[in-house]
Amino acid sequence: MDHFPIDPAFALHRGGKMEVSATVPVRDAEDLSLAYTPGVAKICTAIAEQPALVHDYTWKSKVVAVVTDGTAVLGLGDIGPEASLPVMEGKAILFKQFGGVDAVPIALACTDVDEIVETVVRLAPSFGGVNLEDISAPRCFEIERKLQERVDIPVFHDDQHGTAVVTLAALRNAARLTGRALGELRAVISGAGAAGVAIAKILTEAGIGDVAVTDRGGVVHAGREDLTSVKRELASYTNRAALTGSLEEALDGADVFIGVSGGTVSEAAVATMKEGSFIFAMANPTPEIHPQVAHKYAAVVATGRSDFPNQINNVLAFPGIFAGALQVRASRITEGMKLAAAEALAAVVADELSADNIILSPFDERVAPAVTAAVAAAARVEGVARR
Amino acid sequence: MDHFPIDPAFALHRGGKMEVSATVPVRDAEDLSLAYTPGVAKICTAIAEQPALVHDYTWKSKVVAVVTDGTAVLGLGDIGPEASLPVMEGKAILFKQFGGVDAVPIALACTDVDEIVETVVRLAPSFGGVNLEDISAPRCFEIERKLQERVDIPVFHDDQHGTAVVTLAALRNAARLTGRALGELRAVISGAGAAGVAIAKILTEAGIGDVAVTDRGGVVHAGREDLTSVKRELASYTNRAALTGSLEEALDGADVFIGVSGGTVSEAAVATMKEGSFIFAMANPTPEIHPQVAHKYAAVVATGRSDFPNQINNVLAFPGIFAGALQVRASRITEGMKLAAAEALAAVVADELSADNIILSPFDERVAPAVTAAVAAAARVEGVARR
Repeated sequence: MDHFPIDPAFALHRGGKMEVSATVPVRDAEDLSLAYTPGVAKICTAIAEQPALVHDYTWKSKVVAVVTDGTAVLGLGDIGPEASLPVMEGKAILFKQFGGVDAVPIALACTDVDEIVETVVRLAPSFGGVNLEDISAPRCFEIERKLQERVDIPVFHDDQHGTAVVTLAALRNAARLTGRALGELRAVISGAGAAGVAIAKILTEAGIGDVAVTDRGGVVHAGREDLTSVKRELASYTNRAALTGSLEEALDGADVFIGVSGGTVSEAAVATMKEGSFIFAMANPTPEIHPQVAHKYAAVVATGRSDFPNQINNVLAFPGIFAGALQVRASRITEGMKLAAAEALAAVVADELSADNIILSPFDERVAPAVTAAVAAAARVEGVARR
Repeated sequence: MDHFPIDPAFALHRGGKMEVSATVPVRDAEDLSLAYTPGVAKICTAIAEQPALVHDYTWKSKVVAVVTDGTAVLGLGDIGPEASLPVMEGKAILFKQFGGVDAVPIALACTDVDEIVETVVRLAPSFGGVNLEDISAPRCFEIERKLQERVDIPVFHDDQHGTAVVTLAALRNAARLTGRALGELRAVISGAGAAGVAIAKILTEAGIGDVAVTDRGGVVHAGREDLTSVKRELASYTNRAALTGSLEEALDGADVFIGVSGGTVSEAAVATMKEGSFIFAMANPTPEIHPQVAHKYAAVVATGRSDFPNQINNVLAFPGIFAGALQVRASRITEGMKLAAAEALAAVVADELSADNIILSPFDERVAPAVTAAVAAAARVEGVARR
């Protein structure tokens, strides 16, 4: 019985969106004697004697666990592990489609930081990497950090770093297009959750002139007494201009607006931004500033939506980042690898750069190979590659 | 660089034996908007509101976790999780090939009973069933029991029950062939590990006349002081003949020998078995009694090897058992479902029954559908089906 017979999304999702299959023949007893007993025993013995061979003779180095606890799924919030599965399956098929990376949805029935960390540590032998997904802030920060300390495979919270990498790439190209250097730009980020924190960090590493992050309490600054430890750290390296007011006050004279909050910004505040500004209003489905309004003031406008130009879409980054990391069996994904991914993503636009094309479509076949190659090369430079 | 360039098993295993792929199109932005955001949000919301829909709109009800801790892998013993992965991948592709069931290898970096149970409880939202594999006795018994108490999806330790189901099927057909009833047979099982315990249990449930199980200390009986709790339980319902001696003494006058130990049995002891006996010498690669010797005394001989007739092979059972359980969304795999699987596996041989064909080949295309249908029907009878 079909519960929602008319809706094409329900029709498409019936029975799930993915499957597992064999890449070796299993047609007769001889095939079985190689792929299973007794032939498989030789492979097991070889790995037991020389552990690194697990990368050569199993799918470990091809497969990523897409791990969630279902606490921050899309804009839906804490809907639990089962209800998050359609997103995790979607993520898994994007990994395969765009990066050639096999991925398995793992939606966990626990939300405690240490329980999640411990669980994924126990799963780690079976996987070449861990993509954390839709885990609410601030737990996501601690989980990623603690987990990466415990395992020797890459751990990557895509809601943070995927968004940050694509945002930096878009910003680089907006700057290139308008003849500006990152170092002369002052950016304001609306939202101090997973994405906002990671964007602030990568922009700082990339040499942004200044960046202020705002939450419901206005600009995050060291003088506030309501800050979590993550926001206190944020305050320590952002906001050199020492702003203390609201988001709208911070926009006065700013060069860049980056929205990852889901709130809205008044046109009056947008009008106070510097001429030729960049507005990346990435909230979904409703951008913080409607592109039509943004275009009245900004030189470059981007959103999170596929129906406007310049979509800031994580799928531009994560498949290639993991493909590159797995290719060289990286033990982690360093800041240098993320910066390299952003550079590659910006550079691949090349001479097609225009105000409506600061970032390519994820369906452009040049994207994933460029990111993959850049990340693999950076892993070697950073000393985390194992081949 | 290939480490073992000549060996066909190594060549076959290079890069692993399996992959994940999408079953829905991901060719353009429109596809993406259905399979991923924004379309997927509707599916998530529907499942959050009506949890049972997870079975309809994700791959949960198609996919089984093949869980091990790497402590009892094939005859290799405790080789750890990474080295066990080739076996788990092999198992996964057999699930798909023979049962149409998707399966994911999960080799855990922990061996404590409660840690394994807790880990799999946390994984359970993502899977429709759990196949425990190559976990050493006696921990395997406790893990299976505790886990099944905690989750509402089937938990099945194949080394126990898969072997037991196929053994019972073969024994039923050996009895049918020679015109005997199970109730008039006295069986001796060599080996009180996972397989031996489960075989003793299923034979008892099926109405065997008597069954004695032996370990290194001889027949398991209540008078022994060295018994684990599992063996004490075994002693409580086996060995009605009140034997107390060695395996070879127990064989005197026995109708059935079932070897799941890896030891050897002298020809002199085999010669003391009742005329027209059944010898299932299932140790791999060296049967406890060589088939050539066994045939001098027994009416029916079976082994665990594919190069002799009558191979007692788990792959005859587990794909259909899980396929049947998943088909009706069973919450567990009951004893009745296992007995039904054995009946179906025996019955499918039909009029092709002979001393060299008490059980079909797993490649016979009638096997898995017969087991699947029988298990699904039994789940309904047993009241554990959810559709």
